[in-house]
Amino acid sequence: MTDSQTNPGSDPPAAAGADLHLELRGPGLRAGLTSALRDAVRTGRLAPGTRLPPSRSLATDLGVSRNTVTDAYAELVAEGWLTARQGSGTRVAERARDGGRSPAARARRAPERPAYVMRPGSPDLANFPRTQWLTAARRALTAAPNDAFGYGDPLGQMPLRTALADYLARARGVYAEPERIAVCSGFHHGLALMARVLRERQVRTVAVESYGLDLYRDLLTEAGLRTLPVHVDEHGARTDGLERLADVGAVLMTPAHQYPTGVALRPDRRTAAVAWARRTGGLILEDDYDGEFRYDRQPVGAVQGLDPERVVYFGSASKSLAPGVRLGWMVLPEELVPEIVAAKGYGDYMSSALEQLTLADFLTSGAYDRHVRAMRLHYRRRREQLVTALAHRAPHVRVKGMAAGLQAVLELPDGTEQSVTQEAARRGLAVSGLAEFRYETPESGRRLPRQDALVVNYAAPSDSAWKRALDILCEVMP
Amino acid sequence: MTDSQTNPGSDPPAAAGADLHLELRGPGLRAGLTSALRDAVRTGRLAPGTRLPPSRSLATDLGVSRNTVTDAYAELVAEGWLTARQGSGTRVAERARDGGRSPAARARRAPERPAYVMRPGSPDLANFPRTQWLTAARRALTAAPNDAFGYGDPLGQMPLRTALADYLARARGVYAEPERIAVCSGFHHGLALMARVLRERQVRTVAVESYGLDLYRDLLTEAGLRTLPVHVDEHGARTDGLERLADVGAVLMTPAHQYPTGVALRPDRRTAAVAWARRTGGLILEDDYDGEFRYDRQPVGAVQGLDPERVVYFGSASKSLAPGVRLGWMVLPEELVPEIVAAKGYGDYMSSALEQLTLADFLTSGAYDRHVRAMRLHYRRRREQLVTALAHRAPHVRVKGMAAGLQAVLELPDGTEQSVTQEAARRGLAVSGLAEFRYETPESGRRLPRQDALVVNYAAPSDSAWKRALDILCEVMP
Repeated sequence: MTDSQTNPGSDPPAAAGADLHLELRGPGLRAGLTSALRDAVRTGRLAPGTRLPPSRSLATDLGVSRNTVTDAYAELVAEGWLTARQGSGTRVAERARDGGRSPAARARRAPERPAYVMRPGSPDLANFPRTQWLTAARRALTAAPNDAFGYGDPLGQMPLRTALADYLARARGVYAEPERIAVCSGFHHGLALMARVLRERQVRTVAVESYGLDLYRDLLTEAGLRTLPVHVDEHGARTDGLERLADVGAVLMTPAHQYPTGVALRPDRRTAAVAWARRTGGLILEDDYDGEFRYDRQPVGAVQGLDPERVVYFGSASKSLAPGVRLGWMVLPEELVPEIVAAKGYGDYMSSALEQLTLADFLTSGAYDRHVRAMRLHYRRRREQLVTALAHRAPHVRVKGMAAGLQAVLELPDGTEQSVTQEAARRGLAVSGLAEFRYETPESGRRLPRQDALVVNYAAPSDSAWKRALDILCEVMP
Repeated sequence: MTDSQTNPGSDPPAAAGADLHLELRGPGLRAGLTSALRDAVRTGRLAPGTRLPPSRSLATDLGVSRNTVTDAYAELVAEGWLTARQGSGTRVAERARDGGRSPAARARRAPERPAYVMRPGSPDLANFPRTQWLTAARRALTAAPNDAFGYGDPLGQMPLRTALADYLARARGVYAEPERIAVCSGFHHGLALMARVLRERQVRTVAVESYGLDLYRDLLTEAGLRTLPVHVDEHGARTDGLERLADVGAVLMTPAHQYPTGVALRPDRRTAAVAWARRTGGLILEDDYDGEFRYDRQPVGAVQGLDPERVVYFGSASKSLAPGVRLGWMVLPEELVPEIVAAKGYGDYMSSALEQLTLADFLTSGAYDRHVRAMRLHYRRRREQLVTALAHRAPHVRVKGMAAGLQAVLELPDGTEQSVTQEAARRGLAVSGLAEFRYETPESGRRLPRQDALVVNYAAPSDSAWKRALDILCEVMP
């Protein structure tokens, strides 16, 4: 804080008169004068109560027409900076605002950025298909009817919902019709809308997997919902245990690729989840965050296909394209459509129409499929390099989870997780320990086995950073 | 509802065997077979319990390799559609899902669209600067660092906040620094965030103008805040009456151009509002929805400039560009910044990074100023045509409000408002009566004078629709 501050108790300056130095900038004389006067009042150079020079004399001093000055004064009177009274001339308004108060140029906490980031969450941003995206944007914006630029359908732009219905049925086995698709700004937004709907339905508790992101648990909690963990093992969430959790109205799951442990939900547990939802009237919230990325076989279809009236399917462009696109989608049970429309405020107040239409073109033109295919190869190669490097340089470390997605779980010897992440950080590599994602409560009964492990995002580093990031990772292995 | 439905109680079909007709589509045989089988189960052609033909015989029937069939079966077992047990072959899973249930092709209420729309809210969408926007998008996307495509700063992309700080100080007299600007998806989103912050601060009541949009009053109510009207007269909101309203923590206002009555807040009322805020610790929520559009003189600067620590300034691209852009901004008192970041969930989960960077380029390149100038001329001409037409054809109708914005208020003889809007609707022209916007409560004490009037958006009709829309308007005048 090096700003010099005028003493608020100091004497008010004398009437400004010819002492008033103003620097006129900008294209218009009048606008420049107005702005210079406003600044002078704002910064306290002209204190409250100060009488301004008569317009005629200021005009002469500045070499401008008298009208310019009277206009500028009138403007600032209208804005409340000055007051004008018959007989007492124009004065700086009495305002309590501190004279010389000038904003502390707050040094925003410059976050210490590690040189290499392998924390889960982001795809390879260097491969965002900028050129193809712009091509799609050009086609979409050129073809859009004028109405598309207005306030849109609360469910989102119809061309996007139609394109998604086709894509999701084809690629993810989702039972999708445009009428039950709601566009949102990503999973975070979708879950926030859903939480609101659940609260309206008097749901009190949502079951969540015992490994997952605290961000989403917090979101549910803030929406007034309690969360309870469902135990996750090597076959995914123990959906057969849902029965035993009291008062649960919905369960949030990542069936295709458990986040972050990386396992797929076993078929009998898929059906158990659906059976539970049917018996209890509960809902399955299926977070299909990276369903497109499976490297060993065709991806397993969405659970939603088993019962579209009991499963809410969530997907987004955050992993397949980039988080910055901020577009996601929900495929809803028919009866939930009006409730989501209400939660959205009966309008589409969030998602850019232009961006939605661009994604619609990106999907229908085949650019989306091409990009996903290219990234699948790219990430698959990354994963193989990770596995190979570890096999050579840290053979006792087991890579767990399926050949899928953007991250892998590396099992560590007991008691080493924290020291490994710390040593990595010291060397400029950010990785996450599995403990970050663990969730258990006293009520949840079962204690989770305390497997030490890293969750490593092999997708995020750019090609130029990848080799060095992988080196550091191997070096810090115990 | 013309869908034929199979009787849920009918006998289960016999084992499919050679009767199983499958149409294989799509690029891959395996994917095509999987999809055809999935559809057959889903639509009930293959009922629960049905045994599927042995893979060898189905392969022969279809002329595909046996592996293709076993892979497809395995896939559908993994997805839960089929079950496979040693000795009993592959069967359709027992699921409670109705056999022939086929979605009612819901005829979504096709809203009856009037031929001409002059209801307030939208700018002229036909003039959205598509080409210039695409040029900005190309520059922005080409120049953006890779990181820009990731999860962004909760306050929004820094290049946009920097461009806005400059623009708002210059064009609207706003005291803006990038550090106190929060990007949002428009006023609706900004107000929702603000409502959340107010609730956290234990604010119970927000004063709103006695004319305004019910949409925003409802948003506040749903956020758990009570609303109380502040009387609006020909000099704007009676901010001198804020004292008398009990328990008010914030006041939502449209000082530059009262919505929809079209008057500017008188200088003494601007200062009275600020004085109230200072004395009570209250906040002024300044909705500057169309501050750029004033036709008779320079726009009056924002109230925010009078006290940036007590006023939250809201602006958006919805009127200056188009609602479909879904970008808005709040300029915050310094102490509110962390609270808004918290309300946003500590991330930018709503606004597209690409769109934000495009708007930043649009602003800094001068395209925004050029567009606003062009639209100002366009709307000004429209307003003059409206005034001239009414002067000739309905001389007893008074056009109220300043030469500003996108809409005008036309005063009608007592008791004619409803019949005029109805007659306009009958002729295909949608206009709003002033009554739609009136807000009073038993507590508010003062009854509003019941002036009959229309609120007419002269900006929205496209050039091709304008002449006819204006004709109808003149014809339905009493």
